Amino acid sequence: MDKGDFFMRHFFNVHDIGDLNKALEEAQAIKNNRFGFQQLGKNKTLLMIFFNNSLRTRLSTQKAAMNLGMNVIVLDVNAGAWKLETERGVIMNGDRSEHLLEAIPVMASYCDIIAVRSFAGLTDRTYDYAETVVNQFVKYSGRPVVAMETATVHPLQAFADLITIAEYRQSARPKVVLTWAPHCRALPQAVPNSFAQWMNAADADFVITHPEGYELEPSFTGNARIEYDQKKALQGADFVYAKNWSCPGVRNAADYGKILSEDMSWTIDTEHMSWTNNGYFMHCLPVRRGLIVTDDVIEGDHSLVIPEAANREISAEVVLKKILETL
Amino acid sequence: MDKGDFFMRHFFNVHDIGDLNKALEEAQAIKNNRFGFQQLGKNKTLLMIFFNNSLRTRLSTQKAAMNLGMNVIVLDVNAGAWKLETERGVIMNGDRSEHLLEAIPVMASYCDIIAVRSFAGLTDRTYDYAETVVNQFVKYSGRPVVAMETATVHPLQAFADLITIAEYRQSARPKVVLTWAPHCRALPQAVPNSFAQWMNAADADFVITHPEGYELEPSFTGNARIEYDQKKALQGADFVYAKNWSCPGVRNAADYGKILSEDMSWTIDTEHMSWTNNGYFMHCLPVRRGLIVTDDVIEGDHSLVIPEAANREISAEVVLKKILETL
Amino acid sequence: MDKGDFFMRHFFNVHDIGDLNKALEEAQAIKNNRFGFQQLGKNKTLLMIFFNNSLRTRLSTQKAAMNLGMNVIVLDVNAGAWKLETERGVIMNGDRSEHLLEAIPVMASYCDIIAVRSFAGLTDRTYDYAETVVNQFVKYSGRPVVAMETATVHPLQAFADLITIAEYRQSARPKVVLTWAPHCRALPQAVPNSFAQWMNAADADFVITHPEGYELEPSFTGNARIEYDQKKALQGADFVYAKNWSCPGVRNAADYGKILSEDMSWTIDTEHMSWTNNGYFMHCLPVRRGLIVTDDVIEGDHSLVIPEAANREISAEVVLKKILETL
Repeated sequence: MDKGDFFMRHFFNVHDIGDLNKALEEAQAIKNNRFGFQQLGKNKTLLMIFFNNSLRTRLSTQKAAMNLGMNVIVLDVNAGAWKLETERGVIMNGDRSEHLLEAIPVMASYCDIIAVRSFAGLTDRTYDYAETVVNQFVKYSGRPVVAMETATVHPLQAFADLITIAEYRQSARPKVVLTWAPHCRALPQAVPNSFAQWMNAADADFVITHPEGYELEPSFTGNARIEYDQKKALQGADFVYAKNWSCPGVRNAADYGKILSEDMSWTIDTEHMSWTNNGYFMHCLPVRRGLIVTDDVIEGDHSLVIPEAANREISAEVVLKKILETL
Repeated sequence: MDKGDFFMRHFFNVHDIGDLNKALEEAQAIKNNRFGFQQLGKNKTLLMIFFNNSLRTRLSTQKAAMNLGMNVIVLDVNAGAWKLETERGVIMNGDRSEHLLEAIPVMASYCDIIAVRSFAGLTDRTYDYAETVVNQFVKYSGRPVVAMETATVHPLQAFADLITIAEYRQSARPKVVLTWAPHCRALPQAVPNSFAQWMNAADADFVITHPEGYELEPSFTGNARIEYDQKKALQGADFVYAKNWSCPGVRNAADYGKILSEDMSWTIDTEHMSWTNNGYFMHCLPVRRGLIVTDDVIEGDHSLVIPEAANREISAEVVLKKILETL
Repeated sequence: MDKGDFFMRHFFNVHDIGDLNKALEEAQAIKNNRFGFQQLGKNKTLLMIFFNNSLRTRLSTQKAAMNLGMNVIVLDVNAGAWKLETERGVIMNGDRSEHLLEAIPVMASYCDIIAVRSFAGLTDRTYDYAETVVNQFVKYSGRPVVAMETATVHPLQAFADLITIAEYRQSARPKVVLTWAPHCRALPQAVPNSFAQWMNAADADFVITHPEGYELEPSFTGNARIEYDQKKALQGADFVYAKNWSCPGVRNAADYGKILSEDMSWTIDTEHMSWTNNGYFMHCLPVRRGLIVTDDVIEGDHSLVIPEAANREISAEVVLKKILETL
C-alpha cells in the first residue's frame, strides 16, 4: 500500500495522500466548490462494500462521490448478498457460499474504485493487524481501494479530524490530546490508530492518555507522548479527542480485544474540560452519552462533533478526486 | 411546523402546501411534464430515512426526486446503520449506539432535504401525538423535513388521494366517505388523520364512519360529520375510502392503540358498494384482502387503488419541487 | 413471453433476444462503447426487485443500466419493504401485508422496466415450472420484465456465458460440456436450464453429463446429448461448464428438489480437466470451492469464471438497450 506523494492509488495511511498541507489546501478548495469537478467522475463508478454497519461513512462517501459526478453502488454484504468466505483452503460447506477470491475480482469488474468497510474481529490480533480482508481487495481487485474503516485504520475519519483541527486551531501548533474513555462494548482500535498516525504527521503537540494496558500499536503512535495521568495530559489541551478502544494487545497479546477498564472517572465531563485551554471536544461518532462524554460537554459550544462529521464529506471528496485524477 | 401559504418549508400538514387548488393545478402540470424541472434539483440531495418498512413511499419519493434531477440517498436505519437512541438523559449502554441528537445534524450535513418515515409506537398516545421523533428532525436538522408517514400524519398519501379524487370526481363537490374496516393487527391513525385533514380543507361532502370508540383526533377531523351507521354513511357516496386504524384513544386514553372491534360486517364488499352512488373504492395500500375489502371490489373497474398509488409520484414531486424552489 | 426476433419485450428465453449472432455482435459493440447510448436511458427508470439474495446480478445489472444513463431503484422485498402475498383467494391475516396483485402494478407505475429475481422454492415442481411469480409480473405490470434468475431460467447468465465462449473459442463449433457437480445444499435448475437452452440455440457441440436421476427438463435440453459417464463426456471438451443442481423431478416428480447424490468424484479437479481438449473451466458463481471445483482449477489460467462475470454487465446492457429501443 506504499505510494509516492504525487500519485495516489489506495487510501489507508496518512502517507497515501501525499503532502498534508497540500491536502488541507485541497480540502478547503473542495469545500468552497464541491460540485466543480464533475467531469472527473462522469461514467466512473464507486462501489461501496460494507461488511459492517455504517451511518456517517455510508452517507458522506456516497455524497462525496455524487458531488464528483460519479455513479455509486452500495453493497451490504450481509443484507442482500451472499455471505463471503475469507479464508483459503476450506471446503465451503457452511453458510458462506462465495469466496472473496472470486467475489473481489467480480465486484471490481463492475466499478472503477472500491471502498471497503471491514471491522476488526478482535479475537485474533495477528489476523486483524495483517489487514487480512482488505489486503485481499488490494491484491485481487486491480482497482484503487479506499478504507472506509478497516481492522486497524479509519483514515477518512482522521483526515476529516485534521481538517477540523486546522479550521478551529488558535495557534500554529495546538496541543491535541487523544484520551481513552470507558464503553460498554469492546471496540476496535482503528480510529485511535489513524488519529495518532495523522497527528504525528501533522504539526501538533500530540499526547495520548489511557489506563495502563491500553497502549496502542507503536507503528501508529510513533514518538507521541504517552501520559497515563489523564488530568496531566488534558492540562492546556486545545483539542480533546475522546475515544474508547479495547486492549490493543501490545503489552500482552492474550489481552487483545478485551475490556481492561470500565473506569468512569475517564468519562469527559465539564470538570475534565475545565483542565484544558478552553479546549474543543472531539469524537468521531457514534458516541455513547454517559459513558464517553456527558450531555453538557457534547452539546456545549466547544463541541466539534458535528463539524467533524460534516468534514467527512470533504475528506472523502478529496480522496476520491485524487484517485480519479489517476484513472 | 406552521408555514405561510407562499413559502414552503416542511411538509406535514395540509396548510404546509398553501392554496390547495393551486397545488392541484401544479400536480397536473407536473404529471404532464415530470422531467421538466431538473435544473431545480441539480446537485441537490434528498436523504430518505426509514425507521419502518416502505414500498410505495420508498419507490415513489425516490422516483419523484430523480424526476427533478436530484441525487437520492436511502438510509434504512434498522438495516445497515446504527440503532438510534431517541430519548434524552439516558446512559447509552444498551443496543442503541448513537443518539438522534448527533445523528440528525450529521445526516442533515450530507443533504438538502430530509424525508423521514417513523411510525407510531401505539403504546404512548402523548409521545406519538407530540410527534417526538420527527419534531427532533425539524428542530435539529436545519433542513426542510418531509413526512413519509409519521406517528400521526401521512400527507404525501393524502395529497395523492386528493389528486385522484380531483381526477375522477363527477361533480364539483363529491361525497367522500372515510370508513373504518377490520384488520388483524393494530395500525396507526396517520392515514385517516391526514385524509380527514385534507378532505376538510378541500371542497367535499366529507363523512367519517367507524364503530363506537374509534373516534379520530378532533384536531384532524374538525367539523367532519361522524356517522356510526356504516350503511347510512355510504349511501350516495361518490368515493369510499376504506382504512383500518387502531383506537385513537380520544374517548379513553387507556385504549390507545388497541383493537376494539374485529367486526367483519365492516369489510367493503359488493353489497357495501351497492349502497353508494356508483362510487369509487379507494385505499392507500398495502391492503389485506379479505379483511378490509373483498377481491371483487378491489379488482373491480371502480377501484382506484392503482391510480392513487401512481399519484404518489406526483404528490411527492410537487412537494419536493416547492421546497427546492425555496432553497 | 413469446416474442418475435425484431421487437424485444420481455427477457426470459433465448428466443426473446432474436438472432443470436446479431446479439453477439451487439455485445462486442457495447463492450467497446458502454457509455455510448445514454440518450436511450435518459429519464428512464429500471426497478430491480429482489426476492432473493444477489451479488453479481445486483451489481452488473445496476452498472449496465447506469451505463445507459438510466435511473435505478433497487428494492429488496424482504428487507425494507412489506412481505408480499403471492397466492390468490386467501384471507391475508398472516405476516404478508400486501398482495402481488396490488404491488406489481404499483411498482410498475414508478418505472419503465422491471427486473425480477425470484428463485424456485424447490418444493412444488408444478408451481415453480409454471413461473407463477414472474408470470404475474408479466401479466399485471404492463412493463417489460427482465429475468434476473427466476424459478426456472437465468438468461442474463446464459447470455454472458455465450459471449464468453464466443470470445475464447478456438474453433467455429467448440465442444461444450455442462457437468453436474456435488453441493451441500439443494440448488435450483435455473442456470443449467438456461445454459442448455442457449447452447442448443448457438452453434456448439453440446453435451450434458450428470448422475442418473438428474435429468433436466426436456423443454430446455432439447436434442442435447446426455452422457452419464462424466469422463466420456469431458473427453475433448473445449469448455467445461460445472454446476450443481437438485433433482429436476423429470423422471420422478416426487424427487423434485432433492439431493440424490453427493458423489465427490464429480468435483472438477486437474485430473478431470486433463481429459479435455485443454479446455476452459466455467461456472456462473457463486461457487463452493472443494465441492464443485478445486482451488487449483478455478485459480488456473484456463478458468473463465471472472470473464464470465464481467460479461454479465455486457449481457445486461444489451438486453436493456434492446428494450429501451422499443419504449
